[in-house]
Amino acid sequence: MGRPMSRNLMHAGARLVIHNRSREVVARLAGEGMQAAASPAEVAHRAPVVILMLSDTPAVEQVCQGADGLINAVRRGSLVIDMGTTAVAATRLIADQFAARGAAFVDAPVSGGDLGAREATLSIMVGGEANAVERAMPLLQVLGRNITRVGSVGAGQVAKTANQIIVGLNIGAVAEALSLARAAGVDPARVRAALSGGFADSRILQVHGQRMIDGDFRPGGKVVTQRKDLRQALELAAAIGLELPATRLNLSLYERLVASGGGELDHSALIKVIAEDDESSG
Amino acid sequence: MGRPMSRNLMHAGARLVIHNRSREVVARLAGEGMQAAASPAEVAHRAPVVILMLSDTPAVEQVCQGADGLINAVRRGSLVIDMGTTAVAATRLIADQFAARGAAFVDAPVSGGDLGAREATLSIMVGGEANAVERAMPLLQVLGRNITRVGSVGAGQVAKTANQIIVGLNIGAVAEALSLARAAGVDPARVRAALSGGFADSRILQVHGQRMIDGDFRPGGKVVTQRKDLRQALELAAAIGLELPATRLNLSLYERLVASGGGELDHSALIKVIAEDDESSG
Repeated sequence: MGRPMSRNLMHAGARLVIHNRSREVVARLAGEGMQAAASPAEVAHRAPVVILMLSDTPAVEQVCQGADGLINAVRRGSLVIDMGTTAVAATRLIADQFAARGAAFVDAPVSGGDLGAREATLSIMVGGEANAVERAMPLLQVLGRNITRVGSVGAGQVAKTANQIIVGLNIGAVAEALSLARAAGVDPARVRAALSGGFADSRILQVHGQRMIDGDFRPGGKVVTQRKDLRQALELAAAIGLELPATRLNLSLYERLVASGGGELDHSALIKVIAEDDESSG
Repeated sequence: MGRPMSRNLMHAGARLVIHNRSREVVARLAGEGMQAAASPAEVAHRAPVVILMLSDTPAVEQVCQGADGLINAVRRGSLVIDMGTTAVAATRLIADQFAARGAAFVDAPVSGGDLGAREATLSIMVGGEANAVERAMPLLQVLGRNITRVGSVGAGQVAKTANQIIVGLNIGAVAEALSLARAAGVDPARVRAALSGGFADSRILQVHGQRMIDGDFRPGGKVVTQRKDLRQALELAAAIGLELPATRLNLSLYERLVASGGGELDHSALIKVIAEDDESSG
């Protein structure tokens, strides 16, 4: 998602210094007018605002805390914005490390996927001190809409965790409901239509319910990403002594889907786990 | 819900013959201009269209199959409409028994609660033969909006079952997400606002999420009703050989809420089960 987001920023007039593990990606974006940097440290030397869009928490730790990482190189007064989905505890630790170097940190994870990144319609959940968030806001407004400051550092990641919990469980809900309809001999598409506008209605029923009816599981949001986010949710819950039984079960269903080869499918493919149960018992 | 629905029909110009187990209810509605009947059989003798709005499947069986019930008394050519949430198997059996007496049967369960019944904004999920549904439609249009014929007899109840599965699981999803936010020190109201409009958005997040934030669990839809509907969903699933693991877990959480004295609360009170786990482990 970093590529379309960087293009949106460039088209809005920002001068971009970019780095990526893939030299090919850097070369392509350099060809579009961005400046290439050889390391995260070089980005931190040259840019007063650094935006991270990485796939997981270990990648954020490497880019921030590694030998040629951001923290050792960051300029006093710089602002770092992490827009990936990163563990809350790691986020708070890394923010402290930037603060010790005189740099501000904002977590601003997003919802809306590749399409939202391209069309600049991402929902952005923001955590950070008010003045740091205020500095980040003009950039975030280029990248998305419905931008909400949820609280202090880490609060954006907590909101994203809540988002992923609900998304995973709502997919599971629609999967069981439509599986039951089909097994009971009723057209799932008509059931979905009948439920639209009522208390069972949701974005997941509308978007992912349609994917289930069509059997179209091209991602979209991948199963392996949903699994990572649910694992992170349960790690956070465990760290603060909270039991999340439904989320735990939901993760186990996603684990089964990965084990049966569905990891690269859209997360709405969870319905295949329910259907498989049906076939094995029927 | 039968009372406001019968009033809406009367105000639309229908002549009503009413029966209820409670003589007080019958007396009050008779005072408003409806005609009292002493038994379901008397209703069936006097009215060409019979609407049932009962609390559970045993009540429907009693009213239909009992000694002074509808089936023994129904007029040839009559139409019976069951608007309660009744088990699919019982629905199909009872429809066959009415058919043997020359009467048509339509299942038309609703979503939208007491408020929807009063304001005639119920969502109605309809199962039945096309010509029977066509006869029922002018009456249903007085009582609700978003009226969808899902399929043949029983299909309305299948859709209602799907509705209740999703409602129960979406409440569980929002309960875990907001509990995690609160336990992580983040304002659940801000999380709800941040998630509005994104993939996690739902009617449940909007309506029941707000109830959870306010701690206002006056019903609304009661926990005991949700429990009954989830039990019915699992009975249907078992009858057709389908495993619904998330629904099963969701029911167990509602059972715990009833056991701890929460049966008469709104079903959004499920968040209390998550919060109790937190307190016992914290």
